[in-house]
Amino acid sequence: MNIYDISEQSGVSIATVSRVINNSGYVSEKTRKKVMAVIEKNSYSPNAFARGMSTSSMKTIGILSTNIRDLYQAQCVYYLEQDLKKHGYTAMLCCTGDELEAKKEHVELLASRHVDALIFIGSHFIEKNERDNGYIYAASNHVPVFILNGRLTHDNIYSILCDDEGGCQALTASCLESGATKPCFLATRDTYSVRQKFKGFQNACREAGIPVDEQTLFILSDQTEELGRQVFDLLQNGAFDAAVCADDELAAIVERVAQYRGLDVPDDIRVTGYNDSIFSRLASPAITSFDNRAAYMCGQAVMGLTQILGGSEFPEQTMYTGKVVARASTKSSRGV
Amino acid sequence: MNIYDISEQSGVSIATVSRVINNSGYVSEKTRKKVMAVIEKNSYSPNAFARGMSTSSMKTIGILSTNIRDLYQAQCVYYLEQDLKKHGYTAMLCCTGDELEAKKEHVELLASRHVDALIFIGSHFIEKNERDNGYIYAASNHVPVFILNGRLTHDNIYSILCDDEGGCQALTASCLESGATKPCFLATRDTYSVRQKFKGFQNACREAGIPVDEQTLFILSDQTEELGRQVFDLLQNGAFDAAVCADDELAAIVERVAQYRGLDVPDDIRVTGYNDSIFSRLASPAITSFDNRAAYMCGQAVMGLTQILGGSEFPEQTMYTGKVVARASTKSSRGV
Repeated sequence: MNIYDISEQSGVSIATVSRVINNSGYVSEKTRKKVMAVIEKNSYSPNAFARGMSTSSMKTIGILSTNIRDLYQAQCVYYLEQDLKKHGYTAMLCCTGDELEAKKEHVELLASRHVDALIFIGSHFIEKNERDNGYIYAASNHVPVFILNGRLTHDNIYSILCDDEGGCQALTASCLESGATKPCFLATRDTYSVRQKFKGFQNACREAGIPVDEQTLFILSDQTEELGRQVFDLLQNGAFDAAVCADDELAAIVERVAQYRGLDVPDDIRVTGYNDSIFSRLASPAITSFDNRAAYMCGQAVMGLTQILGGSEFPEQTMYTGKVVARASTKSSRGV
Repeated sequence: MNIYDISEQSGVSIATVSRVINNSGYVSEKTRKKVMAVIEKNSYSPNAFARGMSTSSMKTIGILSTNIRDLYQAQCVYYLEQDLKKHGYTAMLCCTGDELEAKKEHVELLASRHVDALIFIGSHFIEKNERDNGYIYAASNHVPVFILNGRLTHDNIYSILCDDEGGCQALTASCLESGATKPCFLATRDTYSVRQKFKGFQNACREAGIPVDEQTLFILSDQTEELGRQVFDLLQNGAFDAAVCADDELAAIVERVAQYRGLDVPDDIRVTGYNDSIFSRLASPAITSFDNRAAYMCGQAVMGLTQILGGSEFPEQTMYTGKVVARASTKSSRGV
């Protein structure tokens, strides 16, 4: 199903469908619901939720993580679990991986276990094809859904996210202020959050009068060996003097490869990470990063969940700010 | 309750109680059961299990992790969850922290959710005071219990662990072969697994004719800042030329602090880690580590669980070997 099908079946213009999907511009509530109904009707519906509705609450919350070996996601699971327990809830964790079918299966599995709510960690769950998010919309018809660090607009879906665009803009600006003129943006996934960060990267470049386009965005392999080779090649031609990385682990790898190539960090190349994890602190030189306040985000999700399940209100979207943690990887002694 | 109370209440000698608790030397099955009964009777009993017995299987397995932000434990959760899902089981994760009361509470919580089995990750659950393990024994009276990387002896408890003693012996030997004469052993927790590793460390030293005692074992803070200070002080007097560390993260920190102090790794001080995680590969120089085959261990646990729940047998204890992964942090150019 594409945007044309949705337009035809809902009887509204393509431009309107686009506004609904992208959550931009004015669309009447009635029209929005009509469009969403078409998207939902054509998508996977977790029947298990309907079956589960008859059973009383088990005080269990489903947490979905695409990759628990990612330090950031593990940290979120930790915070969520601690906060949930304080309110008498148990966490049911699903490690879905990146395949859409596996994500759907896990939601189905959680539905069959009568969870009271779902929490999706990270932007890895926001699919580019709007139809592919249908299973999340469908689930939200049965239980409240919380999206951490991602955004979906629908009844009973609550998005809580850090301002990644602003965060990456500040990180990039700190590279440029220290004298960089040829920055690039690196990531290992093309997710919603990565796109927000890249926007911030572009904003900072534009403000500094540096031309940027999609050519400065590199989506690299998430397989360590292949990734190492790709970074090695990237740094070979000396085309870049700053690597703004979508996470700390990637930044640490970039720094290591740069040093292996004989480049000095930060004098030849500045490196920034994201998440302010132990990877940024252990690297040598320590890596400038961004504290996106994961504990706060998880606390908000659990607070929202208790409010919604208790019959109160909670904002559909919450965006908060993080902060740059400046370290040696961007403090060039040759800087301006 | 101490060993004297157990001896008195069970009517057997202190030496026998000691043999039962330490699982060493011959004890008749009848005597062993008598001693264990006293230990269990005096310990916490999760009644929720008894209540839960009447309900049919939810095909849910409780996984207990003391610290999901520990990369090793996160990896185990990932492997377990993947394998469990293949067999139609859902994982219910509890992040307990290190407090005994919180561990008990989480087991109670899982019991009330009618889990089919419990999997404890890591040796952080093996308490030194035998009475404090009573809640695990009590749980095993209701559901099969799997202990990963730790060992408890009781009906319906299955321990699966890597030979950490042999592993640390090999790591220490590699330091000594490269010319180290003053090794120390560092950890941030005093757990069952750490004690096994320290045994291996001592074995290697003895074999090389190097005297070691408890003075070469350092249990450091698990708070990063305080840990950094402690390592800084340890390395100050130049008393050591090899730091055998209980995990990779600690090893990476030790290496960083050593370099900060102006020491060369490996020429001034050799460093080894454990778990063969990304921390050992990202460090500069890369750190010699030990692959303790976590994926294999988790696969064994899930296999055992399906066998036991299917009415088949499974060995009470499984110990397997890992392998040293040699890297630059122990390859001294001045070595012998």
